[in-house]
Amino acid sequence: MSGINDMTVEELTMPIATAELQRFLSDLLGNSGVIDDPAEFARYTTDWAGHKHGDPWMVARPRTPEQVAEIVAFCHRHQVPMVAQGGHSGLVGGAQPDSEHRELVISLERLNRIRHLDPINFSISVDSGCILQTVKDAAEEADCYFPLALGAQGSCQIGGNVSTNAGGLNVLRYGMMRQLVLGLEVVLPDGRIYNGMKALHKNNAGYDLKQLFIGAEGTLGIVTGAVLKLSPRPQVSRSALLACPDIDSVLRLYALARRSCCDLLTAFELVPRTCLELAMEASPDLRDPLEAPSPVYVLMEAAASGPVDLDAMIENLFERGFEAGVLTDGVLASSDTQARNLWHIREAMLEGQRNRGEHLRTDVSLPISSLTAFHQRASDEIQALCPQAMIIAYGHIGDGNLHFNILPPPGLEAEERAALLHELEEHLFEIVGDFDGSISAEHGIGRFKQTAFLETLSEPEYDIMRGLKRLLDPRYLMSPGRILPRPIE
Amino acid sequence: MSGINDMTVEELTMPIATAELQRFLSDLLGNSGVIDDPAEFARYTTDWAGHKHGDPWMVARPRTPEQVAEIVAFCHRHQVPMVAQGGHSGLVGGAQPDSEHRELVISLERLNRIRHLDPINFSISVDSGCILQTVKDAAEEADCYFPLALGAQGSCQIGGNVSTNAGGLNVLRYGMMRQLVLGLEVVLPDGRIYNGMKALHKNNAGYDLKQLFIGAEGTLGIVTGAVLKLSPRPQVSRSALLACPDIDSVLRLYALARRSCCDLLTAFELVPRTCLELAMEASPDLRDPLEAPSPVYVLMEAAASGPVDLDAMIENLFERGFEAGVLTDGVLASSDTQARNLWHIREAMLEGQRNRGEHLRTDVSLPISSLTAFHQRASDEIQALCPQAMIIAYGHIGDGNLHFNILPPPGLEAEERAALLHELEEHLFEIVGDFDGSISAEHGIGRFKQTAFLETLSEPEYDIMRGLKRLLDPRYLMSPGRILPRPIE
Repeated sequence: MSGINDMTVEELTMPIATAELQRFLSDLLGNSGVIDDPAEFARYTTDWAGHKHGDPWMVARPRTPEQVAEIVAFCHRHQVPMVAQGGHSGLVGGAQPDSEHRELVISLERLNRIRHLDPINFSISVDSGCILQTVKDAAEEADCYFPLALGAQGSCQIGGNVSTNAGGLNVLRYGMMRQLVLGLEVVLPDGRIYNGMKALHKNNAGYDLKQLFIGAEGTLGIVTGAVLKLSPRPQVSRSALLACPDIDSVLRLYALARRSCCDLLTAFELVPRTCLELAMEASPDLRDPLEAPSPVYVLMEAAASGPVDLDAMIENLFERGFEAGVLTDGVLASSDTQARNLWHIREAMLEGQRNRGEHLRTDVSLPISSLTAFHQRASDEIQALCPQAMIIAYGHIGDGNLHFNILPPPGLEAEERAALLHELEEHLFEIVGDFDGSISAEHGIGRFKQTAFLETLSEPEYDIMRGLKRLLDPRYLMSPGRILPRPIE
Repeated sequence: MSGINDMTVEELTMPIATAELQRFLSDLLGNSGVIDDPAEFARYTTDWAGHKHGDPWMVARPRTPEQVAEIVAFCHRHQVPMVAQGGHSGLVGGAQPDSEHRELVISLERLNRIRHLDPINFSISVDSGCILQTVKDAAEEADCYFPLALGAQGSCQIGGNVSTNAGGLNVLRYGMMRQLVLGLEVVLPDGRIYNGMKALHKNNAGYDLKQLFIGAEGTLGIVTGAVLKLSPRPQVSRSALLACPDIDSVLRLYALARRSCCDLLTAFELVPRTCLELAMEASPDLRDPLEAPSPVYVLMEAAASGPVDLDAMIENLFERGFEAGVLTDGVLASSDTQARNLWHIREAMLEGQRNRGEHLRTDVSLPISSLTAFHQRASDEIQALCPQAMIIAYGHIGDGNLHFNILPPPGLEAEERAALLHELEEHLFEIVGDFDGSISAEHGIGRFKQTAFLETLSEPEYDIMRGLKRLLDPRYLMSPGRILPRPIE
């Protein structure tokens, strides 16, 4: 932006000694609130996949937003870089410390109170260190529902969900985390607290500041509290597996399903035949659920909180799908056990994929209507580059979100495999760009996807993003190097 | 923010003459694209209520985003303040020019192409000057639905809907405009175009820049295009009028309705008895819809795009409501005509209110669970301050959005009335603050609500908002003085 003064960012000096930081933290938090023994760091440097990243200077474990604010103010004064940490289920290296800059890890694991549940307002106010499952359970006890649903929900934390704008299984019906946040409390990089904990469903008073921090991956402030929107708890649900002749039919079936199921659809997942076979490979007691094999399947679910005949809705969808020639076979689960068995396919296919060893995982999104053409072109070109690669492309159709994954040919050396997967990823992301898609539908950028991300940015986008970072965190102390590169390296 | 350099904003000099601006604009837009005759200004200075505000320097009527960009770049170079204008249905004076600073009005009325409708992706891409009703009609032709619904939908424009984060009737089910925007195209204050016209339902690649411009009331850039999210078109709807003993019962009935109606609820409006009486006063053929009068009523609607028995749902709600003692009577419309008659109450009550002459209109929001206590305290204190005032408080219960309006006693002089209404508004806003509510649920801040708004801001909020303005528009040329005050006056 022409109007922003380019500030000279002061070099990250370390004007305090380890002993000083240790003393400050233990005075503030007590001994249990500080971890400075590298032998105990593993828990704070390991991501979900079990990989270790970086080395913290120290780990602080505050219990209150005010303690977070004091720590941040101290770090701001003394130019100590910080990284806030939730439940370690990120996939892009955003929350683990780096190796070179001696970052202070601020773990929010002890900031975990449910502050207030308001069933009449359909809202719940929580500390950011609350585990997602805990929030879901609290909602359920009040006959409400917090819809965010992720594989990691037993360990991931609300602050991480906010900071990564988490997606997951129910986005189609309930939106991503951004749609579920009514209010936020954030410790700003200078240590002041932004208190936006309003439990309002509507508020147009000035710029909506909470939007800045949702999905910012901790680079603009540390989320310490959130007011979340609840829904009525579903009382009934129905699942079905549908067989389609090709991906294009799946898309047309989706358009019918949205209508037949009256927006009560909670999941609509594409499962290609290869994935079903991987699932059967991983789970030998799993039988082919339909008589004849089909090129692609859809796993779907609809749910409702009141008196609705979901069977009639899904049967209506079957009729319309057969009539339109986009559906060749299908099974509607007639019991909870049958439904669980259908959804077991999705878990087993992930296991089958893992069993095949290291592979390229992506998380791209496209306009739903481009999925057929994208899938065709990406498959053709990836197979041309590497005929022995195996493509596994499944995903959330209603979100246009495809996990286009690639298993490399067996027998490659680690280095050779890494180079190949990197080349294939670059090529795939180029195709994503050609279709006006996103290289990160839900996982974010963090550190691992930064290079690819920066290539997608226009000059105005880069300027505004850099300006936002400089506006909120002029000393570049908060999760530095995530999303955007450091201004000086 | 401690890290932002406080720039000295150069004084708004006018280094070009009227003739130069006129020549530049007519070269770019042709003669029909420039209006410089004050006799033709009325259309651009008059708001929805018919009040005239300010005098433009000139009016530019571009046809393309590129023309908007050229105009803005020219204004940026020559320090000409600008105000973008949509359909003139704002209520806070944001889009009309001011009287002193010779602003260039940039009317988007000719930037009105529907660019692309994608029924498989459930999205539509439009110019920002498209009229809301035109977009709704286009969606309907493709068997889709664009849910934003406002009284002004026949004249308001998409750009204004985005810039004010418009609410309206369907927020309960579909969210506000923010939830309906997938992508944006914005001309930045320096004349560059931010192209974020991605038709993606999920995208976590970096900071979500479009959020900055939604609800910014044109102060950070001019929206020239938007990709909007569509839904399936509802096929059936059912309306009902329900009688409740008090507001608290209405809130409890709402919690039941969310469940019984499975999130298919599209409206849940509080109508106090006073409003029904105003409606009957304005529309003498309107009869009392229920046998006995009731202190409060609810007008509700549910709608669905597929095979659902809405009658059964609403009957289920009646049963649960009677059982819980929160419902005393009710009528379910058995035909479209009956439904229209029920909704006629809402229109007629607004007419009845208008017929009573000038009054205080507010647009506040509160946690739904605070509505009873807020209503009680606000009524008591307003009546204590002015025993002859008549309170008319209706609104969208599911959004916690109350139009708490006050009719002054008859017979006051204009000046006396204005002073009284101002005093009552100030007092009401204090109570809103005590309940952690918002003084503007959907209308925005613009110029008229700025004083009250600034009083609600904390120091960090003010600093970040001011920083955002300075980051995007360092010369303060874009809708200056709206939301935030000018840095120098």
